[in-house]
Amino acid sequence: MAETINPQWRVAAFPRAGPQASDFRWVEASLPTLRDGDVRVRNIYLSLDPTNRLWISGQETYLPAQRIGDVVRGGAIGIVEESRNAHLKAGDLVSGLLGWQLYYTGAGRGLAPLSLIEDVPLLAHHGVLGAVGLTAYFGLLDIGRPELGETVLVSAAAGAVGSLVGQIAKIKGCEVVGLAGSEDKCRWLTEELGFDRAINYRTVDLNRALRESCRKGVDVYFDNVGGEILNAALGCINRKGRVVTCGLISQYNAEEPAHNLSNLSRFLIQRARMEAFIVVDYLPRAAEALPQLTEWLRAGRLRYRVDVVQGLDRAPETLNRLFDGSNQGKLVVQVSPAP
Amino acid sequence: MAETINPQWRVAAFPRAGPQASDFRWVEASLPTLRDGDVRVRNIYLSLDPTNRLWISGQETYLPAQRIGDVVRGGAIGIVEESRNAHLKAGDLVSGLLGWQLYYTGAGRGLAPLSLIEDVPLLAHHGVLGAVGLTAYFGLLDIGRPELGETVLVSAAAGAVGSLVGQIAKIKGCEVVGLAGSEDKCRWLTEELGFDRAINYRTVDLNRALRESCRKGVDVYFDNVGGEILNAALGCINRKGRVVTCGLISQYNAEEPAHNLSNLSRFLIQRARMEAFIVVDYLPRAAEALPQLTEWLRAGRLRYRVDVVQGLDRAPETLNRLFDGSNQGKLVVQVSPAP
Repeated sequence: MAETINPQWRVAAFPRAGPQASDFRWVEASLPTLRDGDVRVRNIYLSLDPTNRLWISGQETYLPAQRIGDVVRGGAIGIVEESRNAHLKAGDLVSGLLGWQLYYTGAGRGLAPLSLIEDVPLLAHHGVLGAVGLTAYFGLLDIGRPELGETVLVSAAAGAVGSLVGQIAKIKGCEVVGLAGSEDKCRWLTEELGFDRAINYRTVDLNRALRESCRKGVDVYFDNVGGEILNAALGCINRKGRVVTCGLISQYNAEEPAHNLSNLSRFLIQRARMEAFIVVDYLPRAAEALPQLTEWLRAGRLRYRVDVVQGLDRAPETLNRLFDGSNQGKLVVQVSPAP
Repeated sequence: MAETINPQWRVAAFPRAGPQASDFRWVEASLPTLRDGDVRVRNIYLSLDPTNRLWISGQETYLPAQRIGDVVRGGAIGIVEESRNAHLKAGDLVSGLLGWQLYYTGAGRGLAPLSLIEDVPLLAHHGVLGAVGLTAYFGLLDIGRPELGETVLVSAAAGAVGSLVGQIAKIKGCEVVGLAGSEDKCRWLTEELGFDRAINYRTVDLNRALRESCRKGVDVYFDNVGGEILNAALGCINRKGRVVTCGLISQYNAEEPAHNLSNLSRFLIQRARMEAFIVVDYLPRAAEALPQLTEWLRAGRLRYRVDVVQGLDRAPETLNRLFDGSNQGKLVVQVSPAP
């Protein structure tokens, strides 16, 4: 290993609204030496997800709050270059919270070895067969529990998680309606992913559009956004309907989050259930989901898009694409070449 | 039976905000004759409950919307005076949706015979051993599922349902905190019903008071009110916490209901669950609950207050007492003498 410099992004300030360039600081750190149990990993693909915004909010979430000066937390896939850990050796692919940096140096414990599945590209392991796939699988099936013929509504449906949720719901025999923010995304949902209907929420009267697209009401609403869309979905919720609270992205950049659920009366009258989950709780059950996701993927029943941005230096500006509606599918920053 | 006049209240208009005298019309109807299967019941105790407000809203709820001119729907206890129904005979006590009137004349089907339990007053059958008791029992135990040592927070805690919820939670070994609207109610909760703490929500900074009273956070929030109190409770919700949505009384009189749940992010991070229920769904399971409620009642472990207002003519004005905070315990209108 010739290089001794580790370029990385650190937290410079807690964003108040949308993350700004000034909230991040580019540092060329030196590489620490390895201690017993440590590994050095060269990061390849850095995953950008809405939850990243919560981690740098300065608030404790389901993980400890990041502090000023910390390397920005982020999930990534990388390749082990040096190891003093008995379970990992140079050349192994791993995934984990490797951070917004070129090299992760630290405990090998907590990193998951990645066994490449034949015919499945590395990037799919990051999405469909990674946290994104597990989020869609367990959120929909374990929390939403859709039944044959039920109507499943998905928000941020052209996003990494939403696009899988809709396809899994189709596999399970549901009517699937997606909400997305452009005509192009809507076409992708209906023409390529098999959604029954898609609504461009930016151009319609949301309440009317939902009533028209979900004529039998909504049995499962998979919520990635919160806010007005959540409220509109509650306005269509069916008897014993279920809301899967996966994300609240509409409000992550808000200084004063607003989820005015005026339709909560319908939630009550319909004896509905709203339940939140975090995929980390399901990691111990990953083995239940991965063979099924792999089978569907190989059979062409799960399609996905990956939106790859080149260069660690572009990570901060790229994060904002999750909030301005400009990305489609799984958003990834390529930090270094794949093997 | 000498009387042939049936005084009754009919729906005159759908209340827009708080119900007004002009929303009800007093009618002295004549008594219809009985057809096969019918009974005539003289109403004794008319139950006034927050849900009555929903029934006269002009909107379909979990029961069909009432229309202008309908006898106001209401649950009551009465005594059969005439019967052409094989299952009911004169002198039987029954409960059911007998309406805001002196005499119910109609199908005996749908009325539940009431077997008086020794030492238990008739009024308790209407409350603790009626829909109110089943609401508290199933809402807390089946939806909230409190465990030993957990913290249970109850709103409208001095109300008919809330006061039972807190006592059942104490029986189950929980820490119980109640929210009520006066010092007098709070004293009743802590000094007579065994609540650990009570908060007069009208006089405190709600968020701070909840943090101080629920130092270990809230595991189960039994929600009778919605709105700001619901949001404050979400702000304290624990990992895998449960919100039992039983009622949203803070907004029943609002033209534009407002449940601004800015704390939904905590709901997400804590993987919480919010679930609504309506007691009618549990009526088939009443036999699971009633022996237990009866045992607790006889053992003095469930205390209750009944607030009896004399005279059917006072029903409309009395209904408002559920919304202005002036009633305590179960609110009942006495329509005619008890046997």
